[in-house]
Amino acid sequence: MLNKILKNLESKTPLVHSITNYVTVNDCANIVLACGGAPLMADDVEEVEDIVSISSALYINVGTLNKRTIKSMIIAGQKANELEIPVVLDPVGMGASKLRSETVKKLVENIKFDIIKGNFSEVKALYEDCENEGGVDATSADILKAKDLSYVADFARRVAIHFKAIIAITGEVDCVSDGKRAAYIENGHFMMTKITGTGCMTGSMMGVYSAASEKHYFESAVLSLVAMGCAGEIANEKIEKKDEGTASFKRYLIDEVSKFDTAMLEKRGRYDVR
Amino acid sequence: MLNKILKNLESKTPLVHSITNYVTVNDCANIVLACGGAPLMADDVEEVEDIVSISSALYINVGTLNKRTIKSMIIAGQKANELEIPVVLDPVGMGASKLRSETVKKLVENIKFDIIKGNFSEVKALYEDCENEGGVDATSADILKAKDLSYVADFARRVAIHFKAIIAITGEVDCVSDGKRAAYIENGHFMMTKITGTGCMTGSMMGVYSAASEKHYFESAVLSLVAMGCAGEIANEKIEKKDEGTASFKRYLIDEVSKFDTAMLEKRGRYDVR
Amino acid sequence: MLNKILKNLESKTPLVHSITNYVTVNDCANIVLACGGAPLMADDVEEVEDIVSISSALYINVGTLNKRTIKSMIIAGQKANELEIPVVLDPVGMGASKLRSETVKKLVENIKFDIIKGNFSEVKALYEDCENEGGVDATSADILKAKDLSYVADFARRVAIHFKAIIAITGEVDCVSDGKRAAYIENGHFMMTKITGTGCMTGSMMGVYSAASEKHYFESAVLSLVAMGCAGEIANEKIEKKDEGTASFKRYLIDEVSKFDTAMLEKRGRYDVR
Repeated sequence: MLNKILKNLESKTPLVHSITNYVTVNDCANIVLACGGAPLMADDVEEVEDIVSISSALYINVGTLNKRTIKSMIIAGQKANELEIPVVLDPVGMGASKLRSETVKKLVENIKFDIIKGNFSEVKALYEDCENEGGVDATSADILKAKDLSYVADFARRVAIHFKAIIAITGEVDCVSDGKRAAYIENGHFMMTKITGTGCMTGSMMGVYSAASEKHYFESAVLSLVAMGCAGEIANEKIEKKDEGTASFKRYLIDEVSKFDTAMLEKRGRYDVR
Repeated sequence: MLNKILKNLESKTPLVHSITNYVTVNDCANIVLACGGAPLMADDVEEVEDIVSISSALYINVGTLNKRTIKSMIIAGQKANELEIPVVLDPVGMGASKLRSETVKKLVENIKFDIIKGNFSEVKALYEDCENEGGVDATSADILKAKDLSYVADFARRVAIHFKAIIAITGEVDCVSDGKRAAYIENGHFMMTKITGTGCMTGSMMGVYSAASEKHYFESAVLSLVAMGCAGEIANEKIEKKDEGTASFKRYLIDEVSKFDTAMLEKRGRYDVR
Repeated sequence: MLNKILKNLESKTPLVHSITNYVTVNDCANIVLACGGAPLMADDVEEVEDIVSISSALYINVGTLNKRTIKSMIIAGQKANELEIPVVLDPVGMGASKLRSETVKKLVENIKFDIIKGNFSEVKALYEDCENEGGVDATSADILKAKDLSYVADFARRVAIHFKAIIAITGEVDCVSDGKRAAYIENGHFMMTKITGTGCMTGSMMGVYSAASEKHYFESAVLSLVAMGCAGEIANEKIEKKDEGTASFKRYLIDEVSKFDTAMLEKRGRYDVR
């Protein structure tokens, strides 16, 4: 199925509607194009229904949340549910403020998400409604726990069952579950945490791949993490070779996503479904 | 005149006020600097009049429209008209939602634009007030029609006469008309559709070149498309040579705009005015 | 102390909360990561207090000011003062509009800033409440005056005493004062004015370095200007060697900040404290 998604994108270019933060929105638009989709960003409450109606997937990211767009997110999500197009949630910084926590809770109450993607802290805060004090990144205690892979997989399974959604938990090893299966993705590199937007770009890719997946959302989440992880590894090899820094890393990362294909998936992909 | 515009920019640095979307705004600021202007982005209704008053051109782009900035656009546009500085309209996604269509109509009713730039779908939607379902890019049917160059040129002439503005229609071959003349610009490359912001950057350049054109707006629109097109061609040659991807393409594209000069225009420019 | 700040950042990663403009916000996030911090952008009035509470520094930039975020800035700043974490002000375009001038005045009345950074025009407008018509960059007359280094240093001293803050004035030679000492930083290159965001990135770095400075804010301001200046010089050497343009310059600039260390400071830093 992972190959199939990549093949499908050779002949169609799904339009992905994103309501996302203003920090990494340009990176998100570029990654949507790089992996074979067409980006459209729109967040005014009066136009999101129209925009969802012409789109093949919806990506919601609460990165720089403001009250004006919360209503837009709900209206867009409900329209996407009605039209049965995939909806991806990126609960950035969930737990870092009361507004974010309350908003994300409101979103999951009003929208049926097909994929929810976050680091361990964010997903835990979403599930357990507990406080998260590490900003938009994982807290130290969470990072430790997240090293216990079977713990994370069991947790992802429970959350997936609860929300009836694919849960994708990012970390040194990423974990994806649909409530039954759990996939471990080993691709990736530490340098991916040294630029902004890696997480948002991965979520955006889930939108594109979902739209091309014939409703195989588990596989589209896995593929996004594998593709982004492979790109990160190659990008790091390139900067190490030339002694370059973080901006070069970002450039190579997007370059490699735009070049990612079934051959690279075969050659580099390291993931395991149990 | 094209050479003259480039020469004028050697001695002056026009300030271009942009009210634009948050997706590509950074690219727009960088391209304004790259082609010889100084960027200033401001959209609060209480300050746009002050900002227009110190600017040499105004660029309005409805990419991520929200109701807060519509009023700012109108006030800024009317002030620019009063001060007789050039105003460029980029009706991104015109036709994709009722809000965008109504807003753009309101803009053209209240502001005299000197240049209106869009793809064929957007300009058609603006002119014919018809539905456009391809998001912010041209619909397939439109792309086909747009291949018929004389059709596009005739259409551009009619629209130019209607709006008393220079009409620039982007596509595989770009077409610019002032109602009488029509210019065809053959520069450009398919890769330009694989990154976000190419269109917005071209519109921003029209602001800079217009400010330096001594009111020769037809020529400044042509020059923007030629310069961006040449930069796209060179950028593509570079990534092909090194087997690089879309992020590298974007870097080379902006690089080449920053290096564009009369020698390159002479060497690479492929355009024809009829 | 400059070395100490860099050393401190090897073992801790301060979270820097930024309320900034949407033009260069991505660059700001990437530079915070590049110099050893963790970025968090949030501007909704309902969450800024929560976000400041988990942060180690606050950076306020009025670049694309809108009325919605002014209140957020004040609440965030007051909370930061209460928690005694460093607060940096970047009064972008101060003097270019009535809204900006009034807002910045309101900010300095309600918040105790630890560092205020701007070009000569901006700081002068802030201090003298006079008109500035060069947009977000220094006016020509100001650039001339700013060449008289002792004039600038005296001025910076006076402003520092008035606001009880470190004043950092950027220009061909940068000047930092705490009211007593004045530092001159000679690092930097003209190309830094040919991309957007250099100033905002420098301000963001002041947030990171301040958080790691054990309250030595004078030194953290100096270090930011030295590090950014060195990065700019190396970036320029690279593009000149390969005949590249402004986008490549930006990439190398961020690369070099991410590689900046005590060895480079020793080798390249050109600054003088009097």
